[in-house]
Amino acid sequence: MSLIVLGTVAYDAIETPFGRTDRVLGGAAYHCSLSASFFTQPVQLVSVIGSDYEDSVLHEMRERGIDLSGVERRSDQKSFFWAGRYGNDMNTRETLATDLNALIGYEPKLPEEYRSAEFVFLGNLDPVLQSKALDQMETRPVFVALDTMNYWMDTALAPLMDVIGRVDMLTVNDEEARQLTGEYALVKAARKIRSWGPSVVVIKKGEHGALLFVEDEHVFFAPALPLEEVFDPTGAGDVFAGGMMGYLASVGKVDFHHLKNAVLYGSAMASFCVEQFGSERLRSLRREEIRERYLRFRQLTNYELEVLD
Amino acid sequence: MSLIVLGTVAYDAIETPFGRTDRVLGGAAYHCSLSASFFTQPVQLVSVIGSDYEDSVLHEMRERGIDLSGVERRSDQKSFFWAGRYGNDMNTRETLATDLNALIGYEPKLPEEYRSAEFVFLGNLDPVLQSKALDQMETRPVFVALDTMNYWMDTALAPLMDVIGRVDMLTVNDEEARQLTGEYALVKAARKIRSWGPSVVVIKKGEHGALLFVEDEHVFFAPALPLEEVFDPTGAGDVFAGGMMGYLASVGKVDFHHLKNAVLYGSAMASFCVEQFGSERLRSLRREEIRERYLRFRQLTNYELEVLD
Repeated sequence: MSLIVLGTVAYDAIETPFGRTDRVLGGAAYHCSLSASFFTQPVQLVSVIGSDYEDSVLHEMRERGIDLSGVERRSDQKSFFWAGRYGNDMNTRETLATDLNALIGYEPKLPEEYRSAEFVFLGNLDPVLQSKALDQMETRPVFVALDTMNYWMDTALAPLMDVIGRVDMLTVNDEEARQLTGEYALVKAARKIRSWGPSVVVIKKGEHGALLFVEDEHVFFAPALPLEEVFDPTGAGDVFAGGMMGYLASVGKVDFHHLKNAVLYGSAMASFCVEQFGSERLRSLRREEIRERYLRFRQLTNYELEVLD
Repeated sequence: MSLIVLGTVAYDAIETPFGRTDRVLGGAAYHCSLSASFFTQPVQLVSVIGSDYEDSVLHEMRERGIDLSGVERRSDQKSFFWAGRYGNDMNTRETLATDLNALIGYEPKLPEEYRSAEFVFLGNLDPVLQSKALDQMETRPVFVALDTMNYWMDTALAPLMDVIGRVDMLTVNDEEARQLTGEYALVKAARKIRSWGPSVVVIKKGEHGALLFVEDEHVFFAPALPLEEVFDPTGAGDVFAGGMMGYLASVGKVDFHHLKNAVLYGSAMASFCVEQFGSERLRSLRREEIRERYLRFRQLTNYELEVLD
């Protein structure tokens, strides 16, 4: 089934304890659509780029089954640019630059052929724009997922709450879930978010895995793979979401069983993402490697029961 | 099989965002032995207490099958006292007081009947004392586990490295594993620790679960249960270790299968521990509740495979 991915397409400059790059492909929607394209087609991208964006990258995206008819190109602006630096423990990140460029005044426009998509991912962006994209759907999608971050909780809480009320799934990290709900216990945070509308809540914990809440009594936990090399976490959350949404769109079902597997495929994709800058690792990834990594999760949590007398 | 538990028995004063207590039963060996006593008997405690320690608590411990013949009572000192305060996110902890009291000049002495114990847990304590306890064993135990903390890495690294080289399992948290090895990736940290002697490494991640490394290619991950109430994490690591060691001593086997289950039983015990101050929750715990909670871990990570084409 078709999947819309809304969000940023950017260039990033990244510094980690292990290396630095002045220019790598970035943006939530770039990472997400690249990841989703391993599972489903078409991935219908909605974004904006500047005059500097490389045609060869656009060509590569089209080759991967990513539909770019919803990507606006502004000749008067450069592409969105983000620069950040990670601390030694990789858990703290300092933003060095956020040049909105092409994003200034941007309003998403969904091409006619997008408007009946079954799956929609509203990537991290101004919640007003996330709502405007959703307004353009002509049929109610099977499943709409929303990603956001603390910045919008601080600066645009009312429109954020509005769009949260319109979606089926919210993905946030553990800190954001706590900030958004005022609840420390993630079980309570997820319950509160679910009371606002989304039937599914995914709490991303980075190197600590992800929690899936479907109903109070339905919780699933997927660990992150313990990796030899954690090189750059940039984009991992978007690649995770892309794997989840791409998998769900490919099976066309959103029951607990498929949601669990979606979280595992998302985690598998994220585990590749952190191995190189941005989502560069995905550009050379083969589907067999995803299958192998998915099976490694099985080994990681598999055990035979030994119930006490 | 019998299990020796070495470490502190103390009174704690604790402040969390949810409440405070001026005096609750504490100390690594208290928490650990209480937890272990649900699985195996006898638990042979090695520690020191002061004149102020309540007889009624000693009575309760004996009733639980905890052998106190290795617990020295000093009439000239009060018991070890620790006071701490948790930050709002519960992940930062400030130590307000550490009154060594009875611990000053303490040297562990193993009673004759302890010296052939099959399982030994060397709880967090000066590594010189951990080694001295081990020196007193007359037969090589089946399995010796060691717990430590960053304080000893900073102040007593040489004797710490010495005792690490003598044990079968090291339990540390993720930060400590990184500090001890200088490796960021936990896979690499665990491999380095294993090269120093211990065949088993358990990395405790608190609310994020625990990783068990047995060989490079044998890794197991146990999540922490997502809880409604996280009231006080004090003692959870020791209760975890007590559950692990108590379970292993009860089955008398330390293969990968039983180690995995030991981690799960340890996690189940820790999930009770955080519900009240110290390990107070364990004092009213029933064995059926442990079984039920162990089965909840199964639900949390259980799924049917959906392998990609």
